Amino acid sequence: MVNVAVDAMGGDNAPMETVKGAVEALNGDKRVKVFLVGREPVVREELKKYAYDQERLEVIHAEEVIETGEPPVMAIRKKKDSSIVKCMNLVKSGECDALVSAGSTGAVLVGGQVIVGRIKGVERPPLAPIIPNVKGVSLLLDCGANVDARPSQLLQFAKMGSIYMESVVGIKNPRVGLVNIGVEEEKGNALTKEAYPLLKNCPEINFVGNVEARDIPMGAADVLVCEAFAGNIVLKMLEGVSDALIGKIKAGMMSSLKSKIGALLVKPALKRTLKSFSTEEYGGAPLLGLNGLVVKTHGSSKAVEIRNSILQCIAFKEQKISEKIREQIVLED
Amino acid sequence: MVNVAVDAMGGDNAPMETVKGAVEALNGDKRVKVFLVGREPVVREELKKYAYDQERLEVIHAEEVIETGEPPVMAIRKKKDSSIVKCMNLVKSGECDALVSAGSTGAVLVGGQVIVGRIKGVERPPLAPIIPNVKGVSLLLDCGANVDARPSQLLQFAKMGSIYMESVVGIKNPRVGLVNIGVEEEKGNALTKEAYPLLKNCPEINFVGNVEARDIPMGAADVLVCEAFAGNIVLKMLEGVSDALIGKIKAGMMSSLKSKIGALLVKPALKRTLKSFSTEEYGGAPLLGLNGLVVKTHGSSKAVEIRNSILQCIAFKEQKISEKIREQIVLED
Repeated sequence: MVNVAVDAMGGDNAPMETVKGAVEALNGDKRVKVFLVGREPVVREELKKYAYDQERLEVIHAEEVIETGEPPVMAIRKKKDSSIVKCMNLVKSGECDALVSAGSTGAVLVGGQVIVGRIKGVERPPLAPIIPNVKGVSLLLDCGANVDARPSQLLQFAKMGSIYMESVVGIKNPRVGLVNIGVEEEKGNALTKEAYPLLKNCPEINFVGNVEARDIPMGAADVLVCEAFAGNIVLKMLEGVSDALIGKIKAGMMSSLKSKIGALLVKPALKRTLKSFSTEEYGGAPLLGLNGLVVKTHGSSKAVEIRNSILQCIAFKEQKISEKIREQIVLED
Repeated sequence: MVNVAVDAMGGDNAPMETVKGAVEALNGDKRVKVFLVGREPVVREELKKYAYDQERLEVIHAEEVIETGEPPVMAIRKKKDSSIVKCMNLVKSGECDALVSAGSTGAVLVGGQVIVGRIKGVERPPLAPIIPNVKGVSLLLDCGANVDARPSQLLQFAKMGSIYMESVVGIKNPRVGLVNIGVEEEKGNALTKEAYPLLKNCPEINFVGNVEARDIPMGAADVLVCEAFAGNIVLKMLEGVSDALIGKIKAGMMSSLKSKIGALLVKPALKRTLKSFSTEEYGGAPLLGLNGLVVKTHGSSKAVEIRNSILQCIAFKEQKISEKIREQIVLED
């Protein structure tokens, strides 16, 4: 059984969508047990809507909620009875293997490091969302809050990302690319120039060299390594350009009667296409390198994302990702 | 008369498209005189195809061509008789006000700094492409080859970019945004944290705060300030995501007979939309802060981009951009 704590109160659509997603995960796979953490009366009220195996669901009361705007370090320290902190403690104590939260990104990142804790030897736990490309998906890390990484940290990101892509996503011998402003080895800033030889000389990864941002959506690598400032720009540009372009295309199609009729005919095909290129389709982003799995989903998560995020915890546990990371990082020291 | 040197040999489509673009510019505006620089026999052969005012066109022979792969510093130093170096010398001597090249980006950046030279007080000349957004366009700077900028350089980028957007593009009191990973003042890396107060306290610009990458395509600012590594990622993600998504949408529309018919009907509207969101529609990127205007266009430039780039030199000269930059930078010292 894989025990997953779910922050019932986190995100814009909580608790409605979080509870719904939890129930869908329970009904989708018998290997999952969910601990729904949040204000018990509210959560119980939502649960009344659904049928599910009650033996695999527990509700854990948490009186407080950490809001998105709160300074995360302070919030984690002060709000001991918040849904996020209680989820973290369930993982720390070993009662749960993983937690899923659509709540404050800052609080999840801080809580993961401070409460759940890093695997010994891991310098910095990267936030690693899966992003779509024209051929499939890539893992982009780091997209967290800690910028200005060191070269040795990029190497650890590459190792942890490779393990995750191979064992959880199922891509054999994943290609690792260093996000850079040119493909030649000598290109880039001080960080990428120093990181390049470390990646090139690491036998545990399949390094394919520098990847320009232009080639990221083309699927130039399975694991994209960068520091968090760059990673944030990659991720947010992907989301922003997609949204802007889709908005423009839809408005353009409404510009004449002829194109309106055409729009009706292409709609189903367009919808499928856009779905495959939406970052929200791929479950949450794991925070790698911790003593347990912490998954951060979009603040705007709907049930499907919560469900997928809970289900990805199964592979994470069964494939022993934490143990594999521990082995590789300890080997290195 | 505005004298513009055009690198006839630069880019993937030279000399066919460069010569065509030059002729179109001549025929489009009587205030322009073009100096076509390249292998004279080849250029003359191309020119035979067109009718134009011969008094406003000169062909200047250059025996050599700098290729895209060549190390730029070495190329600029060794190939004195190349089309790029000869263009640069025409601007340096004052014979030309500006130059347009679709050739090696590295060589144009190095040549601009080494031969044309910086305006006194300018720390680093930024490459400043105009990028589309859902409402119009923004100026993104720096996208050049020099990464790891200093905070004082970002302030200069903001000033130069504001002058350019106001005087050349015609946006009154342009909103300046600092590209960052969060909107709050304290967010970011060491560079953006130091640059923020400099921008905030500068009376000559209209600073609107941090801009997340997600809001760039939405038109959150008219002038987007960042160091070149970040700028490169923004620009290349914009191009890459657009291309990837458009490719997916087109393929999706070909998936059934119904959607194929729909595709025919939406095609004209779709084409207009995509044109307005293509980075190639907006002429070349100026390298700001030099003793003369240097414009770098895409390597894949067609005649229309060469033409637009030549024509933008008129506003640059008539609006006395170099003088305005000189005044603001000197004032500051």
